[in-house]
Amino acid sequence: MALIVQKYGGTSVGSLDRIRNVAARIQRTVEAGNQVVAVVSAMGGVTDRLIAMARELAPEPPEREMDVLLATGEQQSIALLSMALRTLGVEAVSVTGRQAGIQTTGSHTRGRIDRIDPVWMNRELGEGRTLIVAGFQGITGEGLIHTLGRGGSDLTAIAVASAVGADVCQILTDVDGVYTCDPRVVPNARKLPEISYDEMLEMASSGSKVMQSRSVEFAKKYGVVFEVRSSLNENPGTMVLEEHPAMENVVIRGVSIERSQARVTITGIPDEPGMSGRILGVLAEAEINIDMIVSNIAHDGMARHSFTMHMNDLGRAQVALKPVLTDVGPEAAIETEAGIAKLSCVGIGMRSHSGVAARMFQALGDAGINIGMISTSEIKIAVTVDETRIEDAARAVHDVFGLDKAPA
Amino acid sequence: MALIVQKYGGTSVGSLDRIRNVAARIQRTVEAGNQVVAVVSAMGGVTDRLIAMARELAPEPPEREMDVLLATGEQQSIALLSMALRTLGVEAVSVTGRQAGIQTTGSHTRGRIDRIDPVWMNRELGEGRTLIVAGFQGITGEGLIHTLGRGGSDLTAIAVASAVGADVCQILTDVDGVYTCDPRVVPNARKLPEISYDEMLEMASSGSKVMQSRSVEFAKKYGVVFEVRSSLNENPGTMVLEEHPAMENVVIRGVSIERSQARVTITGIPDEPGMSGRILGVLAEAEINIDMIVSNIAHDGMARHSFTMHMNDLGRAQVALKPVLTDVGPEAAIETEAGIAKLSCVGIGMRSHSGVAARMFQALGDAGINIGMISTSEIKIAVTVDETRIEDAARAVHDVFGLDKAPA
Repeated sequence: MALIVQKYGGTSVGSLDRIRNVAARIQRTVEAGNQVVAVVSAMGGVTDRLIAMARELAPEPPEREMDVLLATGEQQSIALLSMALRTLGVEAVSVTGRQAGIQTTGSHTRGRIDRIDPVWMNRELGEGRTLIVAGFQGITGEGLIHTLGRGGSDLTAIAVASAVGADVCQILTDVDGVYTCDPRVVPNARKLPEISYDEMLEMASSGSKVMQSRSVEFAKKYGVVFEVRSSLNENPGTMVLEEHPAMENVVIRGVSIERSQARVTITGIPDEPGMSGRILGVLAEAEINIDMIVSNIAHDGMARHSFTMHMNDLGRAQVALKPVLTDVGPEAAIETEAGIAKLSCVGIGMRSHSGVAARMFQALGDAGINIGMISTSEIKIAVTVDETRIEDAARAVHDVFGLDKAPA
Repeated sequence: MALIVQKYGGTSVGSLDRIRNVAARIQRTVEAGNQVVAVVSAMGGVTDRLIAMARELAPEPPEREMDVLLATGEQQSIALLSMALRTLGVEAVSVTGRQAGIQTTGSHTRGRIDRIDPVWMNRELGEGRTLIVAGFQGITGEGLIHTLGRGGSDLTAIAVASAVGADVCQILTDVDGVYTCDPRVVPNARKLPEISYDEMLEMASSGSKVMQSRSVEFAKKYGVVFEVRSSLNENPGTMVLEEHPAMENVVIRGVSIERSQARVTITGIPDEPGMSGRILGVLAEAEINIDMIVSNIAHDGMARHSFTMHMNDLGRAQVALKPVLTDVGPEAAIETEAGIAKLSCVGIGMRSHSGVAARMFQALGDAGINIGMISTSEIKIAVTVDETRIEDAARAVHDVFGLDKAPA
């Protein structure tokens, strides 16, 4: 008998019929001799409707009350799914975030899981019950309701799996697993049987929207092995786990792309300490997320900083940076470029294989694609290209590393 | 500065506009120098929609999960109302049943308030905040969510008023207060400035649907004075309180009517101990609520029992009683009558005034209205009449006791 944690997202429980399907799936897992803890999100659309109501009453609804309001979405799902399971003869009970012992810290609407006290869950599991746990929510030390922000239910599932010592943690979603590249872009992309936490993190931060980084980070920190798989079929998915030596045989695990990027370059920066900090500081203050950062010294001895951001932030970035320019120096100027995209190659094999960047750049050159910025980490090489060429670029790089073929 | 508990029902918070109205009313009360604890129900219709979803998933939804599901309705209201108040500049915070320290006993969907631990509420009140408390819900000793059943939010308001030592408890509803009779039946009915707990209880049990009996009983037990008033205007309502000597000067406080009643009479019962118990036992088992019970010995030496019930229960009652008849005796038979109504006169003044029943029966006789059954308590006289005559009967009795005129 295995103890399995399953996470079902809002789409999976988006209607009463889908709740019945999820119940049937849990029933099969239980009847196969396993014990199940299901972590569920609010029914698809419910959270958005609640947010719309709040916004109608208050232009900036107080976050303490947003948490009280939004937490009801998951509370409804767990009650309804438990009812559906009881109708099928499965002895299921709902467990709210508080009952699950999920203690949070941080701020309202963006709570972080601090620890889980699984006394209640362990007692119910000891009685042989199936547990239906509310994702996305927890309780502060003072007893206030917290929600965990985007991807919060994934985080709940991984934290619960760790707390109850689950044998398996399944993140059930509307994709079949993690692919070598987005199959809509690269038709011969291949589902990966496994991927390391670090690779998953780099994929997540470079455009693969399967999971939020912090859930993967939590899993890595507590050594929770999890599987990303489809809630619509029984196909095996992708295992996400700590890297093992055999993984390094593969040079590149996957390729991810991110569209709608923009570049801002500030030129004419005196080569003095503190300049980068001042520039990035104003962007942080304006809550603009910066992605790639490239900096160098031009032939005139002045520094130039380039960074990428989402295209939608470009206007705000220009407004925020304008007053800084005069501080920076008399020759400072801003150049901007929209309509670019980012292509990232990710793989822990890079550490032990040389020439990866050369092969990647060669492939792009052969395809006639210009490279803009380049940035690298230990297990990632990212470049910007013209957005109109991003799909060609992805196919060229996917091909050159032979990602469509399973490694020997 | 007074500490005021206000209860707003589902109709009062039935839309975002109405929530704004309630917020404005609370704001006025706060700005007049008071501190407010508002107890609110789920938005009108929400509870019914949740019940419908549950029933679609499970013919008999488990009650533990019904409580988890239904409690979300009030949790949404308190968050939304708190948001609306913050927008008006009132420092309001939501308080769930658990946070309010409402400890319950009894069974799921029909919880009873055992005690309230007001530590949280007192701390927030000490900080000068306005509290928005979820009605209708509490927590069992084991930490499970309980709902309190019909009228649960009234009960919450009265219990909270007792726990925080409120100066005033206002039950805000869609009627202006408690009337001498239903104004739709008796146009010159008068709003009562005050009524005793016992009179209110007798009115509630005889058809006046202003409040559930158990809320009044709770208020009486803990000496909570409360006012029933309209949420739509600022008119003073009716104070409900322990009787005081001046109250006895009024013979009859009010007249209430209950339609759609039916009578069952069992004749030919041997005059032996245990017969009534056996008959009423099977009705209790069938969960049929019996109202008036009249029993006497006929000229043949046999006993006859009559009792009234809601017309809708008549069919089930006949089915339940059939097998008992043969047990009771060879001459036992059932007579039934539908299409009757009950008229009750209520007043603690009856205790010290004689001839009340005579005046009441005389008035009915003068109006040509036949009396069926009669039953009395210390402060109530109830009769059944033909349902077609109930409005005439109410007007005749209201007139004879001069209830349209305020007592001197």
